[in-house]
Amino acid sequence: MKIIEGGVCAAKGFVASGVASGIKKKGLDLALIFSEAPCKAAGAFTKNIVKAAPIVISQKRINKKIHTILANSGNANCCNGSSGLKAAYREGQELARILRLKEDSVLIASTGIIGKPFPVEKLIMALPELVLSLDKNGNKRAKLAIMTTDTFSKEISAKISLDGKDVRIGGMAKGAGMIHPDLATMLCFITTDANIEKAALKRALKDVVESSFNSISVDGDTSTNDSVILLANGLAGNKLIKIETVAYKKFFDSLKFVAEKLAKLIVKDGEGATKFITIKILGAQSKSVARNLGRFLAASSLLKCALYGEDPNWGRIVSRIGSGGIKFRPEELDIYIGHKKVLSKGVACAVKRPVLEDIFKKDSIDITLNIGKGPGEATCYTTDLSVEYVKINSAYE
Amino acid sequence: MKIIEGGVCAAKGFVASGVASGIKKKGLDLALIFSEAPCKAAGAFTKNIVKAAPIVISQKRINKKIHTILANSGNANCCNGSSGLKAAYREGQELARILRLKEDSVLIASTGIIGKPFPVEKLIMALPELVLSLDKNGNKRAKLAIMTTDTFSKEISAKISLDGKDVRIGGMAKGAGMIHPDLATMLCFITTDANIEKAALKRALKDVVESSFNSISVDGDTSTNDSVILLANGLAGNKLIKIETVAYKKFFDSLKFVAEKLAKLIVKDGEGATKFITIKILGAQSKSVARNLGRFLAASSLLKCALYGEDPNWGRIVSRIGSGGIKFRPEELDIYIGHKKVLSKGVACAVKRPVLEDIFKKDSIDITLNIGKGPGEATCYTTDLSVEYVKINSAYE
Repeated sequence: MKIIEGGVCAAKGFVASGVASGIKKKGLDLALIFSEAPCKAAGAFTKNIVKAAPIVISQKRINKKIHTILANSGNANCCNGSSGLKAAYREGQELARILRLKEDSVLIASTGIIGKPFPVEKLIMALPELVLSLDKNGNKRAKLAIMTTDTFSKEISAKISLDGKDVRIGGMAKGAGMIHPDLATMLCFITTDANIEKAALKRALKDVVESSFNSISVDGDTSTNDSVILLANGLAGNKLIKIETVAYKKFFDSLKFVAEKLAKLIVKDGEGATKFITIKILGAQSKSVARNLGRFLAASSLLKCALYGEDPNWGRIVSRIGSGGIKFRPEELDIYIGHKKVLSKGVACAVKRPVLEDIFKKDSIDITLNIGKGPGEATCYTTDLSVEYVKINSAYE
Repeated sequence: MKIIEGGVCAAKGFVASGVASGIKKKGLDLALIFSEAPCKAAGAFTKNIVKAAPIVISQKRINKKIHTILANSGNANCCNGSSGLKAAYREGQELARILRLKEDSVLIASTGIIGKPFPVEKLIMALPELVLSLDKNGNKRAKLAIMTTDTFSKEISAKISLDGKDVRIGGMAKGAGMIHPDLATMLCFITTDANIEKAALKRALKDVVESSFNSISVDGDTSTNDSVILLANGLAGNKLIKIETVAYKKFFDSLKFVAEKLAKLIVKDGEGATKFITIKILGAQSKSVARNLGRFLAASSLLKCALYGEDPNWGRIVSRIGSGGIKFRPEELDIYIGHKKVLSKGVACAVKRPVLEDIFKKDSIDITLNIGKGPGEATCYTTDLSVEYVKINSAYE
């Protein structure tokens, strides 16, 4: 696998664009990804009971042949009732008309504030310019147009070789606040020119989402608008990839690389984040128990404050995990901060405070727990909770 | 019912004291409550899997005849293994020796940092002074000695009349950070001279804890050391109170008043809190579903930041509750901020932003949700999440 340039435009046959439609007060706010050939699609959408209008529509269409994804920032189009749903349908209809596509080949996505009327006219007015500016370098503008409180844009692309053919996978994402697994206000679009069975594409995305987007947490909240969409147009010309083959494994690994890279970039750009925290849970009853415990720990404000303050108060880890509803025996609990063991079989180790302070001063901190119950392991990624986070989120609009 | 002075010393036969033992770098850190007559006791202890040593001991003794409670701040005596447990037993033994009591008539409690060796010698050195200073006005020092990051001390007492006899109930508490139902680093001691059946005492405390301490949340974390202890020495001389009688109802109401008052004081003193938030959940499947949803909402950092910033971004309420694992239909969801309806049957209402801003500027904000599923109702109390909270918790010791 080789890292290449191009983001969502890296794969053959994909172009993109981004314009300022006025939904946001300033800046790019409307992005388009377009494939010249129809794509097989796979998607993972928010599990929040309250789903924004675009989610409802895109979820319905995900099994159709898809040509394009239209995404806006600045307004989530959520809690707008039937007029919100109508607006979301209109977006797609207008775009389909301009591009001469079937309406159900358009996927849509929105991110931004909830409960504000959706300014669909502004969006529609901007569509001709958006379509006209579709370009092989459009990834550079598209990735900017989906940003909200993000402080940097996020993209990555990679290339593998299958049957002597180059197969490319590239993606872009936005994240920052409200990031908690089960997808948070996070949009992620991945494109590939791989020729792959639909079932294989779906399975690959499902498995990859678990170890990437569903393993990150910034603040424990889950948005109404999250979407991860993967489009495959088959233009690479490789032999059809089927599940459980060598080619599938190769494709899967590279998809995993792209997804995990984007997920980590989202964490790095977590609102107000000053630290990148890796939480490893070992010895859990199962992989999913391990992931749940890791995510529960990752959502502790108290722990995250300690990490921000570089205060090696690991007692907060103990306190937190004991109340997560996951069973373990305290007498079997081990905790490591970096490579330093601080708790052994439930008893504090004699570690000098300055040693731990040195670890807590780093930009990247590993916390490892072994709960001594079984073979389940998982790794989660999160950030600290900073004064800046509170400032950002106490005045958002 | 009449509010009276005296806190934990209000009831007949109770005295208290507080001294500085040196467990904390400065200030009072050791409190004692003593009843001249043996007490029936009831307790509610942390549900955290990891329990501090004093919890293990007090839980064992709660059904014995109790004479005294010894509580320290500055060190939680948690994760100290067998030496921590030994230290906790020694505290009790020494106190029992000085007071000439049976060892198992002593309850103990600790609050403070986790995983630091417990300085039991300091504590024991201070016991003679602590006992000598026991006094009817000792509540004033005892309530200070249990404080950690609390910014004010918390006590309340009340008097009722049963069979022509005065019956008093008084309590003190400490809270502040790490406050989340299922008890958080929260200590609460309530004393009464009521003559009451043991079963009635236990039932009363259990029911009262649900609507008070288990209905508050400051930061969603749950401590390893929480204890609510209720002592009744019977000295009021009223006729024995039995369950399901008029006298029980009267006693219960006044216990509820004391407990809810202390719980609300804990919220008011939540670390960095600038707002007092009351969350009412209506229309839930059951009371416990309502409480769980209220508590889940109360633990949202994003919502709490919006409240701190007086930013009427109620979309965060929608986003949060949809991911709490509690089922409802978005089309049936109503949300009120103060008396203003902002969401009606899942659709945003046309409320002008300045109207909501005025509500968000208040010190006390009511958020009411109706999820339209059933008759279950609950009220929870929480705070905003402030820059100050992060500052306090990023450098705790």
